[in-house]
Amino acid sequence: MAVNLPQVRSADLAPVKGVSLGVAQASIRKPNRKDLLVITLAEGARIAGVFTRNRFCAAPVILARKWLNSPLGVRALLVNTGCANAGTGAKGLDHARLSCEALARHLGCAPQQVLPFSTGVIMEPLPLERILAGLPGCLSNLKEDNWLAAAEAIMTTDTQPKAASKRLYMDGAAVTITGIAKGAGMIHPNMATMLAFIVTDAELSQPLLEAAVREACRRSFNRISVDGDTSTNDAFMVIATGRAAAPAITEPVSPEYVVFQQGLTEVAQQLAQAVVRDGEGATKFITVEVRAGSSESECEQVGFAIARSPLVKTAFFASDPNLGRLLAAIGNSGIDDLDVTRIRLYLQGALVAENGGRAAAYSEEQGQAAMRGAEIAVTVELNRGEAAVTLWTCDLSYDYVKINAEYRT
Amino acid sequence: MAVNLPQVRSADLAPVKGVSLGVAQASIRKPNRKDLLVITLAEGARIAGVFTRNRFCAAPVILARKWLNSPLGVRALLVNTGCANAGTGAKGLDHARLSCEALARHLGCAPQQVLPFSTGVIMEPLPLERILAGLPGCLSNLKEDNWLAAAEAIMTTDTQPKAASKRLYMDGAAVTITGIAKGAGMIHPNMATMLAFIVTDAELSQPLLEAAVREACRRSFNRISVDGDTSTNDAFMVIATGRAAAPAITEPVSPEYVVFQQGLTEVAQQLAQAVVRDGEGATKFITVEVRAGSSESECEQVGFAIARSPLVKTAFFASDPNLGRLLAAIGNSGIDDLDVTRIRLYLQGALVAENGGRAAAYSEEQGQAAMRGAEIAVTVELNRGEAAVTLWTCDLSYDYVKINAEYRT
Repeated sequence: MAVNLPQVRSADLAPVKGVSLGVAQASIRKPNRKDLLVITLAEGARIAGVFTRNRFCAAPVILARKWLNSPLGVRALLVNTGCANAGTGAKGLDHARLSCEALARHLGCAPQQVLPFSTGVIMEPLPLERILAGLPGCLSNLKEDNWLAAAEAIMTTDTQPKAASKRLYMDGAAVTITGIAKGAGMIHPNMATMLAFIVTDAELSQPLLEAAVREACRRSFNRISVDGDTSTNDAFMVIATGRAAAPAITEPVSPEYVVFQQGLTEVAQQLAQAVVRDGEGATKFITVEVRAGSSESECEQVGFAIARSPLVKTAFFASDPNLGRLLAAIGNSGIDDLDVTRIRLYLQGALVAENGGRAAAYSEEQGQAAMRGAEIAVTVELNRGEAAVTLWTCDLSYDYVKINAEYRT
Repeated sequence: MAVNLPQVRSADLAPVKGVSLGVAQASIRKPNRKDLLVITLAEGARIAGVFTRNRFCAAPVILARKWLNSPLGVRALLVNTGCANAGTGAKGLDHARLSCEALARHLGCAPQQVLPFSTGVIMEPLPLERILAGLPGCLSNLKEDNWLAAAEAIMTTDTQPKAASKRLYMDGAAVTITGIAKGAGMIHPNMATMLAFIVTDAELSQPLLEAAVREACRRSFNRISVDGDTSTNDAFMVIATGRAAAPAITEPVSPEYVVFQQGLTEVAQQLAQAVVRDGEGATKFITVEVRAGSSESECEQVGFAIARSPLVKTAFFASDPNLGRLLAAIGNSGIDDLDVTRIRLYLQGALVAENGGRAAAYSEEQGQAAMRGAEIAVTVELNRGEAAVTLWTCDLSYDYVKINAEYRT
């Protein structure tokens, strides 16, 4: 189902020293699947993260955000699928806290050293007993090379597990970055993926780790849209164990920081794009580049106006070059002083529209040929500045409706 | 297909003295259908209107907006379906102007006294010759009681013509308000309908007519959403011929103005709701009331966050009370200081959620029963003020995707 998303192989996911992952079957929503994940972190690991801006954020988000900066340091993440524990009020907060307390007792640490994450149906109570019962299974399954099983354990409507891994070299010493993510609907910044966890053995100061996470998020999970809906549970966490042989990264303008930052962004982009490729019902992967804008935020506005337009997305699904809908979406992006006569629109690199109308050289046949592929590039030139943004989206198909109409059945 | 939308009968649409309508078959996009409409206005008629805020607005919108306040007075409207004449650059403006000039020659008036309106596919050239050839047919068909034919002539993906008529009494004298509208996709404020024309024989001063149109629009066409997409061609025009026996309305605080304003709003709401009932692929008509907000704009923000969420809309299509998606949409509406613990959510009048979670008395069976109907009422109480807003939307079905994937075929 996913668009050009190769199956992840366990061998491609490099373990990161100091981080172990264990999964178990807790029957949270459906039987016969691993749905509970524990990630343990060696002492001294640093963590930084970005959470959903949805005001109805889930209980685990409230707790994780609060405990993220615990002076004791974070020692474990507890992740479940099947139930979002969102829209569950005070009882939901109790459930999240009690699950962390239980894992903390097993690990011999304080509850604040365990961060909870949930994904699944909203407004249903977390089945606490089943989660507690699943914890020993996770703990006995803890392994450093368990990334693929972890990626599988956090899936909801995802058709494929999502994971990525990258090796960098700094002063000749290897640094590993490995991560997992899950989609596949309710995907729109900020944030864009429901859950993503990336781990590295690099050593960074806390401020630099936080800066690196923000920048990576800005250029990955905050640049994708499946359906324009922002989840209650989104979280993107990055953990640095500091166990690599490479020297610590402490200077923001150093080559080491730049190399790490780029590597982290690449892994985050790979995961974010995997979320779109496996977007609910997706049959096309669409790259929208908006350039020559007066600011990045204005470029994002235009890009997301395209990415969330149901009319644009259904035209892509139909492989129909009904490109006037792209112009309508651009005009609809809320930029009051937009001069539409300066805009150029390209499809697969070929000029489609300029001077407020169709380009003379563009033909319907050309548009049809471009729309036939599974990978489509849309480029919008605003011609009013030098900012540029690239974002990724997918089409809107019968299957999107089907998946979401039948989600709870 | 449309949700509880009774067939309009010609006998229910009262003619308005001083206004005639004529339709013809110009084969603009499809053969064998009336697709061209001329509305002529007797001398002295006043006109006011609201246009799309889409920056890629169509050539006819640019021209109509410019000529609306022509000191000569407007004598005719020229409306075509099948081609939007949007995204057509300088040539599109020429086409719109030339079509007005042609009709003006027939009528013996100035081109600026003819306002053009188009709806249909974007970024395709207006077939000017066919429109010019269709004009004599429209003119020979001009009749005061031609409202139903006019409503049919402006349809695109509408499955039913949309028209409404109302009679008011002022000082014992009858005043008529009759109008037509077309949807049925690319429907989101501002504006919400692609085209709506309402005519009355009341006499109003120009400032009062403009105020009445703005207020009616605010509470009707600007309170509906089918798919969150704002068209390039939206226009809502109101014409007052002043031929009724009732005295002229010149005072904004007068009972006459209030009666007229309410009557106009009712007709506009009836047309706007008809657009939603006949929204592309609609199987449910959903009324969203947001109340106890601190401002109307905040209530609108919450209401439209619900109305444009694909996840909410697919759940309605499935008759699935997955009401957590409503909470997620509310949380996602962009109100930063929203205290979710104060919010109450009702479905068909029954309390569903409070204190940030599910209400104790709510049961899944209750939700299922409420979702089964074709008319669904969602009420959100923000409990932070006294403002309230009601808006209307529909569900997102397979047929929405089908209609929009196959629109041009």
